Amino acid sequence: MKHGKHVAVVGATGAVGREILLCLERRGWKPSEVRLLASARSAGRELPFAGGSRAVEELRPESFRGVDVALFSAGSAISREFAPHAAQAGAVVIDNSSAFRMDEDVPLVVPEINAEDVRLAARKIIANPNCTTIVTLMALAPLHRAFHCRQVIASSYQAVSGSGAQGIVELEQQVQASVRGEALTLQVYPRQIAFNVIPQVEAFIDNGYTREEMKMQNESRKILHAPELRVSATCVRVPVYRSHSVSVTAVFEGAPDPGRAREVLAAAPGIQVMDDIAAGSYPTPLDAANGDDCLVGRIRVDLALDNALAFWVVGDQVRKGAALNAVQIAEIL
Amino acid sequence: MKHGKHVAVVGATGAVGREILLCLERRGWKPSEVRLLASARSAGRELPFAGGSRAVEELRPESFRGVDVALFSAGSAISREFAPHAAQAGAVVIDNSSAFRMDEDVPLVVPEINAEDVRLAARKIIANPNCTTIVTLMALAPLHRAFHCRQVIASSYQAVSGSGAQGIVELEQQVQASVRGEALTLQVYPRQIAFNVIPQVEAFIDNGYTREEMKMQNESRKILHAPELRVSATCVRVPVYRSHSVSVTAVFEGAPDPGRAREVLAAAPGIQVMDDIAAGSYPTPLDAANGDDCLVGRIRVDLALDNALAFWVVGDQVRKGAALNAVQIAEIL
Repeated sequence: MKHGKHVAVVGATGAVGREILLCLERRGWKPSEVRLLASARSAGRELPFAGGSRAVEELRPESFRGVDVALFSAGSAISREFAPHAAQAGAVVIDNSSAFRMDEDVPLVVPEINAEDVRLAARKIIANPNCTTIVTLMALAPLHRAFHCRQVIASSYQAVSGSGAQGIVELEQQVQASVRGEALTLQVYPRQIAFNVIPQVEAFIDNGYTREEMKMQNESRKILHAPELRVSATCVRVPVYRSHSVSVTAVFEGAPDPGRAREVLAAAPGIQVMDDIAAGSYPTPLDAANGDDCLVGRIRVDLALDNALAFWVVGDQVRKGAALNAVQIAEIL
Repeated sequence: MKHGKHVAVVGATGAVGREILLCLERRGWKPSEVRLLASARSAGRELPFAGGSRAVEELRPESFRGVDVALFSAGSAISREFAPHAAQAGAVVIDNSSAFRMDEDVPLVVPEINAEDVRLAARKIIANPNCTTIVTLMALAPLHRAFHCRQVIASSYQAVSGSGAQGIVELEQQVQASVRGEALTLQVYPRQIAFNVIPQVEAFIDNGYTREEMKMQNESRKILHAPELRVSATCVRVPVYRSHSVSVTAVFEGAPDPGRAREVLAAAPGIQVMDDIAAGSYPTPLDAANGDDCLVGRIRVDLALDNALAFWVVGDQVRKGAALNAVQIAEIL
């Protein structure tokens, strides 16, 4: 549905909203209309699109009249309140928040992995998965299909843009204050993020894990249709602007050979293998930033567990982890 | 042997050498003499010690006459060449390089864990373990003693000071260039380290792991007297100045309860439990920097593996990971 459709972007002024507009342009969308929706505070701001610019309108229940597809990226509370209005007005909602992800009648989709699940969208709502989960699964899903994954241990290295524009500003300001020898202020993160790492992404729940870490297990199970999959994650914020990295150990039913795993990944869509240690080739966040593909390297036999591989996957979480994935979902409708 | 001994510090002008001098002072050493040894380039430089200052001398084979204990921290090549001279001159060598660590007649010692191994020093050489290994084992060893560890999966977040003073300079210069919008130069690391993470610490070997990663398995086995222990590590450099962090999943023979693990760790020397998620308490590198103790938090049941705990441990790798550990070894002789 790239042409002649009426598209609404909710949260258009945010980091993901703006990236959605870029993705629509870059992928050749020619919508009949693009409606940019945000809070009253942002109404009237002009955002560039397709060579021109469009004014941001205040998001209201009646904003979705005539809209064919509404891409939401303004947090769970906004999605819970306004997605039903959009669906009722006839739009298909693609929601980037966690509001509906685990609802049974809402498909949770990474197009390269489970595009066919969009047909299950009983409420005209399709959810976009968590960014760290998308990046991890872009490498894990092809391996799962080939070798059947049972257990995953993951430690992440997550960029500040995962917290939106305010995360970027916090790191910039702390770095500048640090370089000038001034006192640092904390607003977004519970600890200093400049020249530090923080082993907490989102709030803790009772089992000692954070919500972000539990999404890695719960969303992976739903996307892969693997209800028995066990995922143990440690999600860590690092002073990187863009792209999440994940160090993964995955246990399989068989004993996959790293060479065979590289072949499987090289043939999979949306992922590039960068894995030649003799040439010093492996991905870093800077390699993945502003790219569509996730990058995988450091593929090797895990030394601690039987039938296991270790690997390192990196992806631009604003793009493939959010905006691009949402636009790709719209394209398969 | 804190008093009246003749101490030599080899590599005195380096990051670890200077920290060794600070540790000797802070721990109340009153040596009869302190000889500061380094390359010819540094000879004549004055370094502060015990309220005064001492001149650095050029390291030569004959530098060790009359020396009781020689603390080496100038890289493997220097240790291989000069440690035998020091031992022959009658000194006990405590070597911070990897030159002798895996030699059968050289004990590899973390005083809180295997102090008794110093008696095995047949060649008067005692090795100081790898910094990431020390930080990890400070938390793992008490748990191993209580619950018998069999397998470890570790992902590290390693500070640039692990590469010595030049690592610190590289990060500082790249950050400043980045803030000024100038081009960045790479000298120490194969990729940009400012606002990036690099999944390579040290050179690769044939099995797809780096030397640093293999040290985690090989040195842990030797220190813990656990030749069957399996350790799979992914070592990653992060833009942090000081203190290494490690995300660990450890599989035990029994099924240790996190509460019991906290009790075991709280009673262990050299480690502090910072683990109260309700209060947002967990350690970050900044919490551990310039402290003697390693800090452990995020202790929880691992969701992917049976009989396993996940935890997060942080330690100042220049101090406990190198200088302090070496001085502590000297103290138990």
